[in-house]
Amino acid sequence: MSDISPLAPKGGFPKLPVIEGVRFAAVEAGVKYAGRLDVMLAEIAEGSAVAGTFTRSKTRSAPVLWCQENLALGAQAGGSAILVNSGNANAFTGDNGMSGVEVTATAAAKTLGINPRNVFVASTGVIGEPLPASRITDKMSELRAGLSEGNIEQAAQAIMTTDTYAKGASASVDLDGVTVQIAGIAKGSGMIAPDMATMLVFVFTDAKINQSVLQQIVSGATVTTFNSITVDSDTSTSDSLVVTATGKAAMEEISSITDPRAAAFTEALHGVMLELAHLVVRDGEGATKFIEITVNGAESNAAAKTVGLAIANSPLVKTAFAGEDPNWGRIVMAVGKAGEAADRDRLSISFGDILVADKGWVSPDYREDDGVAYMKAQDLSVTVDLGVGEGSATVWTCDLTHQYITINADYRS
Amino acid sequence: MSDISPLAPKGGFPKLPVIEGVRFAAVEAGVKYAGRLDVMLAEIAEGSAVAGTFTRSKTRSAPVLWCQENLALGAQAGGSAILVNSGNANAFTGDNGMSGVEVTATAAAKTLGINPRNVFVASTGVIGEPLPASRITDKMSELRAGLSEGNIEQAAQAIMTTDTYAKGASASVDLDGVTVQIAGIAKGSGMIAPDMATMLVFVFTDAKINQSVLQQIVSGATVTTFNSITVDSDTSTSDSLVVTATGKAAMEEISSITDPRAAAFTEALHGVMLELAHLVVRDGEGATKFIEITVNGAESNAAAKTVGLAIANSPLVKTAFAGEDPNWGRIVMAVGKAGEAADRDRLSISFGDILVADKGWVSPDYREDDGVAYMKAQDLSVTVDLGVGEGSATVWTCDLTHQYITINADYRS
Repeated sequence: MSDISPLAPKGGFPKLPVIEGVRFAAVEAGVKYAGRLDVMLAEIAEGSAVAGTFTRSKTRSAPVLWCQENLALGAQAGGSAILVNSGNANAFTGDNGMSGVEVTATAAAKTLGINPRNVFVASTGVIGEPLPASRITDKMSELRAGLSEGNIEQAAQAIMTTDTYAKGASASVDLDGVTVQIAGIAKGSGMIAPDMATMLVFVFTDAKINQSVLQQIVSGATVTTFNSITVDSDTSTSDSLVVTATGKAAMEEISSITDPRAAAFTEALHGVMLELAHLVVRDGEGATKFIEITVNGAESNAAAKTVGLAIANSPLVKTAFAGEDPNWGRIVMAVGKAGEAADRDRLSISFGDILVADKGWVSPDYREDDGVAYMKAQDLSVTVDLGVGEGSATVWTCDLTHQYITINADYRS
Repeated sequence: MSDISPLAPKGGFPKLPVIEGVRFAAVEAGVKYAGRLDVMLAEIAEGSAVAGTFTRSKTRSAPVLWCQENLALGAQAGGSAILVNSGNANAFTGDNGMSGVEVTATAAAKTLGINPRNVFVASTGVIGEPLPASRITDKMSELRAGLSEGNIEQAAQAIMTTDTYAKGASASVDLDGVTVQIAGIAKGSGMIAPDMATMLVFVFTDAKINQSVLQQIVSGATVTTFNSITVDSDTSTSDSLVVTATGKAAMEEISSITDPRAAAFTEALHGVMLELAHLVVRDGEGATKFIEITVNGAESNAAAKTVGLAIANSPLVKTAFAGEDPNWGRIVMAVGKAGEAADRDRLSISFGDILVADKGWVSPDYREDDGVAYMKAQDLSVTVDLGVGEGSATVWTCDLTHQYITINADYRS
């Protein structure tokens, strides 16, 4: 295990609220790692709504395909579950992949007395090795015995791979006088996929909400949270986000996206998702800087995001941040390569509140010393105005350091 | 100056043929660097054809815009010239940018007695600083006095920035009994643009060929040479390729692309361009491995190239090569993220002649020791078959090492 990221939140894992209708268990199954929690089971009460978003990779893993099929089939009668292992991604494992999913999902379903098609499975770890499914199925009794509403932190630990700390976030929101709780956990270091298959996120709420409305909210909130972060531009075979709403709060169901409570719930859920997304970036491999990049003045919000990600993914921009070098010329380069409309002679760039470039050239008031001093901070912001329209977007990333090379050039050998 | 790249060709700068109708001079002008050649002038005889391809960056430099305007206007009466400085890219310099180009192009034109619109200008170096044009114009007499057919190596030295060696390549080709010579020089480390603005390539031939046919050949050959290499996915503001045909060879003009001699000439020119492109990759910042990636079985050649570049640009693939780790799982990941059609269950991957993955899983005959032994070589090849069609493409890249981070995190500071 590496040292904890310097960008990790102080104070360790947060205190998360109990979500009525969800119980967690985590065990040491030795899927690959020895002496640590590596399998987690979440039992979800009957009547819950489950929504999800998944990687768009063309080589997505068997567990991802399974979960997408579950959602397409719709919820089966009875309760649901989430079963996750770390250490093995069960990706690119041929026919063995889906049989591994079926064996473990069926075992969990039998243990909990539910339909296997209500079991959402995720695997994260090495690609291309067959899943040792029996190590997981052997632990089903132990998992069932350990189920408890308070075990979410252990669940967060069990899904870690190269993560340097367990990730959790929560919110509560008042919906017409009813307080609803939201709690989520995540693993991952952004889009990074060493051998590992990257980002897994599980969010739970006691809100009572229709499945299709929940899916719509989750899909929308993903765009500006998990789909707006990048560590190194690589996309995993296994990225999965599953959001579960148990409906245990004493409220009428939210059955339409136009229900005013849907907006309040969306805002709270978005906040939890954004916090988890930021926690993933803060655990980016080798990261020493957390960087927020806002692009304004684009032709559209989508164009702004394209430019933002071009900046966030540029190795030259990321190494400049690592070197605490206010190298705005590299941001000009990244804007140029993004391919979206930009007016070179109206382009402006700021680091924090410092206007660095303006009207297509270095700002007359900019002093290099100010830029150098600004770059010493751990959390940095860059704002770019393209000067052609009203579109805007914000993305988040980290820097590219020697430690990234060390982790990824030496990982398997 | 860094140590010479371990991938540099042995034996230093090659002996290049004289191209009748072209004379070169290079001087120490102190644009930024002291004590080294940093400005070069090529005088091109009247009657020559000039073709070019340039960066598609939206923040392209003033010299690139000037050259594109020259080509759009068409050749003016009289001779032509190429004027290049290193140390300053004259990019993102507002109104000063184009005035710097005009001042230096006009000075060169006056010195040689030609039209300024026949002067092709290129600048490479730091972005955002005003070009000290007088340091260049002050050297015009010295440049004119130094013009010689034999000075192409000095010209190649004068255009270097972070390059660790000067780059040249040549070919001769028999066109219906007439031997035509081609000689070219390049600078750059791929798409890398530290503060520098990257890749410049100048190719000269004594072939007699119509300008529009030459442009068509150059544009076509660029696709499979310079547009098929990548060091770090970043695109410079200044990439320029200019090809000059002086027509001094004792031949009838090639005035149609269907002339059989056009095919022979294209093959020879393509070979020189490919060799120069490979030399650029071999000087990739921090590179220790030269990697050829071939993608077969794609829906189209364009799809194959997209997948090839996704592999070549993946930081995780590139760090695995740096670590001599035969980590084929990362290649699966990169295939998946490219977004093109691929049949996961027919996907195959080979390292050199070693079949690593086949039919969606690790090959039964693959031994990890063989992969580890293969990765020790300096020049490596990867072949991927996507299993869905007949499209194919080859791209070239280098690995991503600690030295890349050192160069780019510490360059300005």
